[in-house]
Amino acid sequence: MIESTSNAQMKKIQKLKKSAKFRRQEHCFIVEGFKMVEEALRYKKARIVYVSEDAMEEWQARRIEDGMKSIRCEEVSTSVFRQISDTETPQGVLALVEMPEYDRDALLEAEHPALICLEDVQDPGNLGTIMRTAEGAGMTAVVMTKGCVDLFNPKVVRSTMGAMFRMPFYIVESMTEEIRHLQGQGFTVYSSQLDGSRNFTECQYQGKVGILVGNEANGIRPETSACANEKIHIPMEGEVESLNAAVSAALLMYEVHRKRRK
Amino acid sequence: MIESTSNAQMKKIQKLKKSAKFRRQEHCFIVEGFKMVEEALRYKKARIVYVSEDAMEEWQARRIEDGMKSIRCEEVSTSVFRQISDTETPQGVLALVEMPEYDRDALLEAEHPALICLEDVQDPGNLGTIMRTAEGAGMTAVVMTKGCVDLFNPKVVRSTMGAMFRMPFYIVESMTEEIRHLQGQGFTVYSSQLDGSRNFTECQYQGKVGILVGNEANGIRPETSACANEKIHIPMEGEVESLNAAVSAALLMYEVHRKRRK
Repeated sequence: MIESTSNAQMKKIQKLKKSAKFRRQEHCFIVEGFKMVEEALRYKKARIVYVSEDAMEEWQARRIEDGMKSIRCEEVSTSVFRQISDTETPQGVLALVEMPEYDRDALLEAEHPALICLEDVQDPGNLGTIMRTAEGAGMTAVVMTKGCVDLFNPKVVRSTMGAMFRMPFYIVESMTEEIRHLQGQGFTVYSSQLDGSRNFTECQYQGKVGILVGNEANGIRPETSACANEKIHIPMEGEVESLNAAVSAALLMYEVHRKRRK
Repeated sequence: MIESTSNAQMKKIQKLKKSAKFRRQEHCFIVEGFKMVEEALRYKKARIVYVSEDAMEEWQARRIEDGMKSIRCEEVSTSVFRQISDTETPQGVLALVEMPEYDRDALLEAEHPALICLEDVQDPGNLGTIMRTAEGAGMTAVVMTKGCVDLFNPKVVRSTMGAMFRMPFYIVESMTEEIRHLQGQGFTVYSSQLDGSRNFTECQYQGKVGILVGNEANGIRPETSACANEKIHIPMEGEVESLNAAVSAALLMYEVHRKRRK
């Protein structure tokens, strides 16, 4: 049983939670709680599971149920687990998980792909929620710039509610260049912005589609918006200056869903 | 200048941030940052503004611009301000603000009111975002059960982005009873739930409308759902179990907006 936070494995977990760079180096990240750990196991991404002393009984009961007997499992004392946990009342289980990876070319070759393209989305809750909604709306993939908050940040991971193991994604250096590439492949790119000329409900979103959503404070960069095929907006009543980025993305993705399932 | 966190006013601010009960007793709450304080001033709700020593110059410049010269203003030392602030890099201005209040009967007498009715929504970010989106979608009011997170919680206040000074709301003891009251006034109430029989895009949402959204983990209570006129659902692809509550509310409110503006 691991009984000290200075244990090498515990140190690694803490570093993986804090540092996006270390996560990239190690090609893994941390998920916490029964639900997320079980999702990681289901998608064969978990490398090691850490179980708190006081959660071992429940864990073993669930493991047998799931038929997940072969995974490496380390017991951690209750007090150490509490210290490495993100939550105030930890469920007592976390896992070191392999990063999922997707091939951009294969994703773009899907039949009529629909992409949600995020430029510099900064809030972890927004990114996680967008990933969750993207799966619900049946999008093909989430495209993120390097300026977005790291997808493997613990807060993002939590708010995806498991969608991060199922929703394909890829990361690009520059959204401007990515749009040019997509257009070369026959995509129509819609930029959602406050001054967009068309109401988002007017477009048909047929064929290969990319939907652009920008940074919470600054929206889409002018040079990125300039590359888009269509500028769209979500109508707003009252004196609201803008909608939350995850809300805007949800309205747009579900509009694509609606028009394409008709 | 206030130079100690044990100053009676500083203690009051900290208590107002922490305790929903104290906020109700005092009938006031705290907003932070230039934008929120200026909104509070605009709606004549600010009682006292506290300005950090190092933000005084900017505050005075902005005050003259806005013509807001009469409000009581207290200077606070930079270090004390940092301690009472919620944010890591405080803007240096916060205000003690009067709670807005609305008359339920007057709201329900509006022409074709559309209400978003929240039962036990617990996440502060979700409640704030729903309030912001409700204004954007042109809803008449937000109805909340007492089991919802307190609207005047600092995290909720922040995520409303000012909509809390503009969006009418009222709080009810029980959503079941409120639905019966609304139905007595001619409202049609739509309950959004995973097993709702109609796709949310199929309904017309004409006349007096109430849209029910439930708790993040448990959804709408069965007894509340049983009172509703229509059970609706948002279609979901993939293996997503549910959507985020603020996302669901946004999709529903914008559907009401779309059907009623036609």
